[in-house]
Amino acid sequence: MTLTEGMFGDPEIAAIMGPGARLAAMLETEAVLAEVEAGLGIIPGPAAARVAAVARGLRPDPAAIAAAAAGTGIAAQALVAALKAAAGGDEGFVHYGATSQDIEDTALVLQLGRALAVLETRLEALAARLGAVAADTKALVIPARTRFQIAAPTTFGAKIAVWRAPLARHLDRLGELRPRLLNVSLHGAAGTGAALWPQGAKVRRGVAGALGLGAPDLPWHAARDAIAELGGWLALVTGSLGKIGLDLVLLGQSEVGEVAAGTGGGSSTMPQKSNPVAAEALVTLARLNAGDLGTLHQAMVHAQERDGSALGIEWQILPQMLERTGAALRIGGNLAASLAARPERIAARLAADRGAMLAEAAGFLLAREMPRDTALGIVRQALAALAEDPGETLAGALGRLMPGRDWADLLDPARQTGEAAHMVDGATTTRPDSQGEKR
Amino acid sequence: MTLTEGMFGDPEIAAIMGPGARLAAMLETEAVLAEVEAGLGIIPGPAAARVAAVARGLRPDPAAIAAAAAGTGIAAQALVAALKAAAGGDEGFVHYGATSQDIEDTALVLQLGRALAVLETRLEALAARLGAVAADTKALVIPARTRFQIAAPTTFGAKIAVWRAPLARHLDRLGELRPRLLNVSLHGAAGTGAALWPQGAKVRRGVAGALGLGAPDLPWHAARDAIAELGGWLALVTGSLGKIGLDLVLLGQSEVGEVAAGTGGGSSTMPQKSNPVAAEALVTLARLNAGDLGTLHQAMVHAQERDGSALGIEWQILPQMLERTGAALRIGGNLAASLAARPERIAARLAADRGAMLAEAAGFLLAREMPRDTALGIVRQALAALAEDPGETLAGALGRLMPGRDWADLLDPARQTGEAAHMVDGATTTRPDSQGEKR
Amino acid sequence: MTLTEGMFGDPEIAAIMGPGARLAAMLETEAVLAEVEAGLGIIPGPAAARVAAVARGLRPDPAAIAAAAAGTGIAAQALVAALKAAAGGDEGFVHYGATSQDIEDTALVLQLGRALAVLETRLEALAARLGAVAADTKALVIPARTRFQIAAPTTFGAKIAVWRAPLARHLDRLGELRPRLLNVSLHGAAGTGAALWPQGAKVRRGVAGALGLGAPDLPWHAARDAIAELGGWLALVTGSLGKIGLDLVLLGQSEVGEVAAGTGGGSSTMPQKSNPVAAEALVTLARLNAGDLGTLHQAMVHAQERDGSALGIEWQILPQMLERTGAALRIGGNLAASLAARPERIAARLAADRGAMLAEAAGFLLAREMPRDTALGIVRQALAALAEDPGETLAGALGRLMPGRDWADLLDPARQTGEAAHMVDGATTTRPDSQGEKR
Amino acid sequence: MTLTEGMFGDPEIAAIMGPGARLAAMLETEAVLAEVEAGLGIIPGPAAARVAAVARGLRPDPAAIAAAAAGTGIAAQALVAALKAAAGGDEGFVHYGATSQDIEDTALVLQLGRALAVLETRLEALAARLGAVAADTKALVIPARTRFQIAAPTTFGAKIAVWRAPLARHLDRLGELRPRLLNVSLHGAAGTGAALWPQGAKVRRGVAGALGLGAPDLPWHAARDAIAELGGWLALVTGSLGKIGLDLVLLGQSEVGEVAAGTGGGSSTMPQKSNPVAAEALVTLARLNAGDLGTLHQAMVHAQERDGSALGIEWQILPQMLERTGAALRIGGNLAASLAARPERIAARLAADRGAMLAEAAGFLLAREMPRDTALGIVRQALAALAEDPGETLAGALGRLMPGRDWADLLDPARQTGEAAHMVDGATTTRPDSQGEKR
Repeated sequence: MTLTEGMFGDPEIAAIMGPGARLAAMLETEAVLAEVEAGLGIIPGPAAARVAAVARGLRPDPAAIAAAAAGTGIAAQALVAALKAAAGGDEGFVHYGATSQDIEDTALVLQLGRALAVLETRLEALAARLGAVAADTKALVIPARTRFQIAAPTTFGAKIAVWRAPLARHLDRLGELRPRLLNVSLHGAAGTGAALWPQGAKVRRGVAGALGLGAPDLPWHAARDAIAELGGWLALVTGSLGKIGLDLVLLGQSEVGEVAAGTGGGSSTMPQKSNPVAAEALVTLARLNAGDLGTLHQAMVHAQERDGSALGIEWQILPQMLERTGAALRIGGNLAASLAARPERIAARLAADRGAMLAEAAGFLLAREMPRDTALGIVRQALAALAEDPGETLAGALGRLMPGRDWADLLDPARQTGEAAHMVDGATTTRPDSQGEKR
Repeated sequence: MTLTEGMFGDPEIAAIMGPGARLAAMLETEAVLAEVEAGLGIIPGPAAARVAAVARGLRPDPAAIAAAAAGTGIAAQALVAALKAAAGGDEGFVHYGATSQDIEDTALVLQLGRALAVLETRLEALAARLGAVAADTKALVIPARTRFQIAAPTTFGAKIAVWRAPLARHLDRLGELRPRLLNVSLHGAAGTGAALWPQGAKVRRGVAGALGLGAPDLPWHAARDAIAELGGWLALVTGSLGKIGLDLVLLGQSEVGEVAAGTGGGSSTMPQKSNPVAAEALVTLARLNAGDLGTLHQAMVHAQERDGSALGIEWQILPQMLERTGAALRIGGNLAASLAARPERIAARLAADRGAMLAEAAGFLLAREMPRDTALGIVRQALAALAEDPGETLAGALGRLMPGRDWADLLDPARQTGEAAHMVDGATTTRPDSQGEKR
Repeated sequence: MTLTEGMFGDPEIAAIMGPGARLAAMLETEAVLAEVEAGLGIIPGPAAARVAAVARGLRPDPAAIAAAAAGTGIAAQALVAALKAAAGGDEGFVHYGATSQDIEDTALVLQLGRALAVLETRLEALAARLGAVAADTKALVIPARTRFQIAAPTTFGAKIAVWRAPLARHLDRLGELRPRLLNVSLHGAAGTGAALWPQGAKVRRGVAGALGLGAPDLPWHAARDAIAELGGWLALVTGSLGKIGLDLVLLGQSEVGEVAAGTGGGSSTMPQKSNPVAAEALVTLARLNAGDLGTLHQAMVHAQERDGSALGIEWQILPQMLERTGAALRIGGNLAASLAARPERIAARLAADRGAMLAEAAGFLLAREMPRDTALGIVRQALAALAEDPGETLAGALGRLMPGRDWADLLDPARQTGEAAHMVDGATTTRPDSQGEKR
Repeated sequence: MTLTEGMFGDPEIAAIMGPGARLAAMLETEAVLAEVEAGLGIIPGPAAARVAAVARGLRPDPAAIAAAAAGTGIAAQALVAALKAAAGGDEGFVHYGATSQDIEDTALVLQLGRALAVLETRLEALAARLGAVAADTKALVIPARTRFQIAAPTTFGAKIAVWRAPLARHLDRLGELRPRLLNVSLHGAAGTGAALWPQGAKVRRGVAGALGLGAPDLPWHAARDAIAELGGWLALVTGSLGKIGLDLVLLGQSEVGEVAAGTGGGSSTMPQKSNPVAAEALVTLARLNAGDLGTLHQAMVHAQERDGSALGIEWQILPQMLERTGAALRIGGNLAASLAARPERIAARLAADRGAMLAEAAGFLLAREMPRDTALGIVRQALAALAEDPGETLAGALGRLMPGRDWADLLDPARQTGEAAHMVDGATTTRPDSQGEKR
């Protein structure tokens, strides 16, 4: 354990991806392998039944397997040795026709299937919650900020709809990648299924069926694109959440304070502080996964039929990327649960801005009556008046420069949010938690 | 230019993604924008026609735009200024209702659409060529090597089918990501389409239709998942080619020499050398793209409605990732064109191995008649005999230990390649260049 | 060229590291090699003189060398072929005893020496300028912000002294790494100097002396630590500047605006905008170099005596990291030249804060008279009063809770900046531009 | 724990960097802080003594601190709360004048100092062992391989001297970075030492002295160059070991087998296999640290006076980089302990090469009597004879083409290793374990 696991870890994903679960998944794979082989007459039925029972009952010490794996270079091999020892006279029917990596990879995808189900559920819930908040606040004006400057009005709901849109796409992507990823590995030592020939394909389909996985025609021992693609998906998810985190950090600065979410962290010495520790963590998790994704892709350069140096990269990177994605979705969910705009701070900001953020709008309004460059010249004059006189507003200045229009009404930010509310409607009527339209 | 662009560059992709093409795509976007707006009565038709004509005729100096972009922080803005200047009295109808990033991003996806078409064509051709080689060599025995050691027999065709399989998946992935990526950007300053309200959605659809792009309901100014996903796809492609490159490097070592592809690079001082420079380049390109992918994902942490620091990362990374992917596919295509096994080297290797790679097969053969651990004990005895006597073979040793079987025939590597030939058939009967089964 | 090179490029470094300079440096290396060998009687003097003259006069077309390098896998080899062709009957004395990588690497460090001199000069100038600004503003109060919240008072000068401190360390690091990096490569094909034996060491020292480089005893063909270390240094420099850039972005937000530097980029549609494009670029450059550093380190895993796949990574990464470092220092220098606090905005911020940032100070003041937890309890009461009444200040609230002290004076931020001014003095009296104390 | 920690972990470093050690180091820092402050009369002596005793006796549950840290965003703050609770009436004198990050960072460098001492000792031992092996084998001929092709003769000792050289430089670098890294952090909330003014500097020096650390004038809360530099050093070390690992993998391939080190990992199904699992792990560890270094440098872009999102990156990355470096040095040490050339395999390789690797040498020998291009033409003719006749050798072919010289003797590889033996002498007479010449 680490002192930071409360911030950046996720117990549920950690349990699914952890050593105990890996050992159990490998043993289940060996059990099913024996049963399927017996069903096809490859090994004797009674022996297979005993092997399966022993495998399912075995509780090897993870530390002992880890120690042995230092010598074998792959945990599955250490586990197979333990299983053979436990199988006694049936040891010859243990792991029959498989290679270590078959077991390691099949167990991995069993774990991944479970982890992805958890992540999917969280992602759907987060998208649904953001959709609800967006719907509720679709008309709540808030400044858009481009390149760290106040730009023009938008609505809080539109902001959130922009946060939410990639999440729906991530659900689509997940649906696309699953069939490429969740496949049994069972092609034996050289990837040819030689030891089970000519029944390898049948064994593969049988094991895959029993485990709820796909059965590929070709070995993926050395073709690791689905693993790298998964890493990409995880980094996409944390990246989108990192954007939400960064926005919350920025919107929650002392000087802005327009949005609140979660409870802030206090300071050990400054009693007035309320730190955006959860939002910061989303940024951290996004950057960590981004970096790890690059490293994971290095493992695609995989030598020949099996490359321990490349596999080791996957083994170290994947679990932490998954756990971080779980953590980000958990933290994001918590933040979304209490996400709220602070209308009084927004109102103060709009007042302090004195209409400068409506400069573009004013230009377009004037351009209906005159050449646009003339219009923009007038707007610039009005902006200059604002800069000189802290009591001036854009509407006021324009009222003097171009009287006869109700500038305060025309430049009411609430009238200048364009499609914002419609965007929210379009984006959130189809909820990600309804089965029908997910993919 | 650089001295390494012949190795790692790709002129066709460079031209598509280059500054001239970007400027042309931005100008075309502005032209279409004006035309669509005129069609909807937003700006006057004659002015729009003049703006479109000026835009399409403009040939701005890329260096001047680049210099101006240093001050504006985005090239589109510098270009819009140049276009307005060229439009004279019509300048007010230039870039009407759009923001710089709309133009920058729309032009980007226009370029990306073209670049992806080139990459797809090359990928299809490479997959087809590899499929043909695999079909021709599906029964040609060659050692499989796992963890840098000779393992057991496979066939050259099966090796190549494993190389090819991810390429077919990459084509599927490309089909999936395209609709998420190739979308117009046209949501204006705050992402609300305020300046074009209530006709923004119509303008967007019109411009998208004219440019052959999709029209999203929400702005993607700050939701960059499709860009990061594209980066992932590029790295997947170069990763798969990097694996091919590494395999060719390893199979082409002086001590192995079982496969030849391309013409080697000579040495400035060693006349006997023939260096696998093209295969090495595939490894280099894979590692470069892998690293860049991690950096590109950092840009998903994008502040608020627009973040210049994050956009800058994309601008620097994407073109080089695309060009490297083009280079890898070009180099991979060249290597595949001359890819050939060297049967005499393989035969020498099989002879030198003296049957050790059939140890697993021997164990399974014996296990039909006796407990598997007894069988493996006999195999180990035979392997020990090989180690002691350099003239011994596994078949010979087993013939002495377990006489009465035709060990030479049983352990003929050609009889021990399991599904290899069938794997090739299954993998390559559906060619990626036939429209029907691509996705 | 690219449309972003004005933002992220550096012409001076680009010229030093560019193809023309590389070819010239390689040719100069070949010329010196011939001269030194002649001096030692290894090759005939007149031939060496002719070779040197031809090398120094040759102006090969970079594009032609680049095209040839696609086949040879290393530019030096293509250049050596061109030089031999130009040398006519003297070709046998060209490149005598060297290998391509000797020439490539020696030329590289010649270029690096020049590039580092430029970077050092800029770094010294930047540190000096920041030191001067810090000295001028060491007492100018400004809020410190921790975790994106206003924390407690510091001074603008202290902020800048913190920016500056790493730059001085980077100058020290540069002094340390130079002797490890700027070494001739001249150990021949197998790294043993066999072709020049027993005079290889003398030739090496002669060439090194003539070129102003060190002469290592061992080949560094395959030991690339100095290259990776250089990459680390470049990323350290851009990282420190990225921190400055991020601070400027944050301090320049519309809602903060306490610091100005450079001229902002305008918007194509929003006339009121002034975007911090230069500061954003510093962040971009830092993140790009950080990512590239990880990729560059992958090249340390270098196979045997020479690994083209690893060298290719260096060739692609190093020049762009150097150019970005140059760009960051140039941009940083420009920003520093006009760096200034905006006292009226700071004053407004202090007023708006109403003393909350003095909460820690108030606690320590009270703790002189009572247990600290009692003191903090009182401070919390006062903060609660602030939260309830927007007209209240911390001094006012404490005045009511704990009368009899001049709270306004005690909590004057200018009295609560601790060592800030002294820190500036200590940090900047030794200027980095004075030769004496640099290392 | 994980199933791969036997392969990629290091218990000694894990213990030094682990949560228990971090808590103990933080508590020791708080204890010393109280004692030093009492010595300076800042807090009462008896209270300080009690606080120090409580701090040194506290054994907080790491899991509880981790859980609390999820809310505070920094473990130190959770620990300070626990310490205050334990201090009862003295709680006001706990953590007096410090901020959480002061404690977190000071504890970190205390741990780093210990971890670096362990790494240094291992590095020295590895360099010494490699130096000894190099000395013993300085004349043992082995082929150099450039770009994955046999190039020309070198010696095994020279190979190892090239492996060893960067290790000695890493020891130098460690000496240089330590004073920049191992510094107390104690500048308080805003980095100004305001709460301890005017005695902050004295407290800092006192605490630093008691903890064996340096006392910087400026806060490093937000200037993280020393942390990033440390990451660079760790990646340099693992990179150099990754090169050794890759070389061992390649030299240990079935087809090469010229070097043995460690005991191979077996296969779960192929009894003849002996997998280079330790050497592969060195490559894995190098690539993981390389990738993490890039991510760690992202944390240099640190906002203002404290940035939780950047600190989180350091917290997650640094411990695993340190542990991997420890693992690599441990594994490297184990491999070096049994590192040995296999002369019979080398002899077989030299025989199989038939002198082709002496082609360069032959060219130089002939060039003493004739123009070099004529000489190279003759060598090419001889090489062509080799290619045609598998029974031919280079010496034999040259004997026919250029009779009258003892070609077998001239082209004896042992005569063509140039400076190899001298290089070893120069590189290893000064052992890294002798105090005198380390830096």
